[in-house]
Amino acid sequence: MAFAFNAGHATIVAMPVPSNTTTITAAFIIIGNEILSGRTEDANLTPVAQGLGRVGVRLAEVRVVADDVTAIAETVNQCRTVHDYVFTSGGIGPTHDDVTATAVARAFGVPVTRHPEAMRQLVLCYGEDQLNEARLSMADMPEGADLIENPVSQAPGFRMDNVFSMAGVPRIMVAMLAGVLPSLIGGAIVLSRSLSAEFPESELAAGLARIQGRYPEIEIGSYPYFRQGCFGTSIVLRGTDVDVLDVAVEKVRAAMTKLGADPMKVAEEE
Amino acid sequence: MAFAFNAGHATIVAMPVPSNTTTITAAFIIIGNEILSGRTEDANLTPVAQGLGRVGVRLAEVRVVADDVTAIAETVNQCRTVHDYVFTSGGIGPTHDDVTATAVARAFGVPVTRHPEAMRQLVLCYGEDQLNEARLSMADMPEGADLIENPVSQAPGFRMDNVFSMAGVPRIMVAMLAGVLPSLIGGAIVLSRSLSAEFPESELAAGLARIQGRYPEIEIGSYPYFRQGCFGTSIVLRGTDVDVLDVAVEKVRAAMTKLGADPMKVAEEE
Repeated sequence: MAFAFNAGHATIVAMPVPSNTTTITAAFIIIGNEILSGRTEDANLTPVAQGLGRVGVRLAEVRVVADDVTAIAETVNQCRTVHDYVFTSGGIGPTHDDVTATAVARAFGVPVTRHPEAMRQLVLCYGEDQLNEARLSMADMPEGADLIENPVSQAPGFRMDNVFSMAGVPRIMVAMLAGVLPSLIGGAIVLSRSLSAEFPESELAAGLARIQGRYPEIEIGSYPYFRQGCFGTSIVLRGTDVDVLDVAVEKVRAAMTKLGADPMKVAEEE
Repeated sequence: MAFAFNAGHATIVAMPVPSNTTTITAAFIIIGNEILSGRTEDANLTPVAQGLGRVGVRLAEVRVVADDVTAIAETVNQCRTVHDYVFTSGGIGPTHDDVTATAVARAFGVPVTRHPEAMRQLVLCYGEDQLNEARLSMADMPEGADLIENPVSQAPGFRMDNVFSMAGVPRIMVAMLAGVLPSLIGGAIVLSRSLSAEFPESELAAGLARIQGRYPEIEIGSYPYFRQGCFGTSIVLRGTDVDVLDVAVEKVRAAMTKLGADPMKVAEEE
């Protein structure tokens, strides 16, 4: 499905593209003083990264910013001109420290208005008697925003062009993301393979660099680990062409075996 | 203790400052494709945030970037001109995807050189026979870098002016950070208080906004939660003046009690 979004200043109508050739990137902006102070551990980055990956959108950059209108607006503007999509989490609740709508409105140079459909949903959820001004303020959104459905607690998120603002509470964020993902126009899906063996990564480094040089389209990562008293290395290979990927995997497997790694321990995951 | 660092282009000699007045900020740059792909959950943000907080340095911004020299160099340069300190994690190992030294060197416009003391430590750790070229490459650092001690696996991190590059493996990162923290010149320590009660945050929103307006120097955050079948709200107050902080805490406690929160449930945490 196609939709119009505004990348920078020009409005572009994005059309479906062949999914095996194009690179589509996203930035994720995590909004919240509680993350920056170390009080709360972020739990949204991984589901966003994995969810986007499944629809062919590559998470290229993450920012964590404070509950500060200027900081959020600047970060949104930096990211939305560089990436195809921007996602934010946090700051869409009913209290004074929820400033995401104001910040995104400022980024787009539009006023904040009360969204009629969001208000209708809040009335439906809370009933007239429970709907205080704070709750109603969750319908305040940048002018022109579309709603992002919230199947958990009703207060919706919103989309402005290529910027999607979601809740910070992980359970709600994941539910909103699930609703958004089918509407994205993804590019090539990145496939991933992993090989592990119990020896230090430095022993494999030279061979690995040669394989990386030969297959520049494959992203090869080396990750040391220490588990159950053993040092080991996981090699992760990522790429969009399954044939090239499989050839590179076999090269890495051969390099590991040649170094004396127990072939039984050369496990291929996923 | 004082040390010279280069904030942007001018070299500044930072002197100890009264710890109760100055705001000192930091950025944390998490380097690694494995975080952006969702394969690995970051575990370094929280200890960095908390560790810096204890010495009066406020984490103001976090970035997650790919194992890409240009992206890392640009991010380092954006952050080191804006913040007093910059910390990076990841990308200092022995394999081809460890590009942090190259990127920081590029950010500072200096070449990468093999650091003699780092080399000495690696020889000491691995012995001449185990010291292959890949391991030796962990002594390659931006020209002029100082070492950051690695008490876990010896391969050191490095400091260039106000930029500290540490390992990505959490156990090593935490050990390096512990060694670095005493050398930082912190500003005012931010104190934190938390009050919780079992009612929705929207009910407290209006009163909370008034308290925030009256005490602008206190940062008041509202965090809804759902635990053991109950909706509740934690209010976190943060500030550098303990007297003002305590007054604001009592205002919030009073607002909670007035709303009918069971005073026994208004629990104050640290």
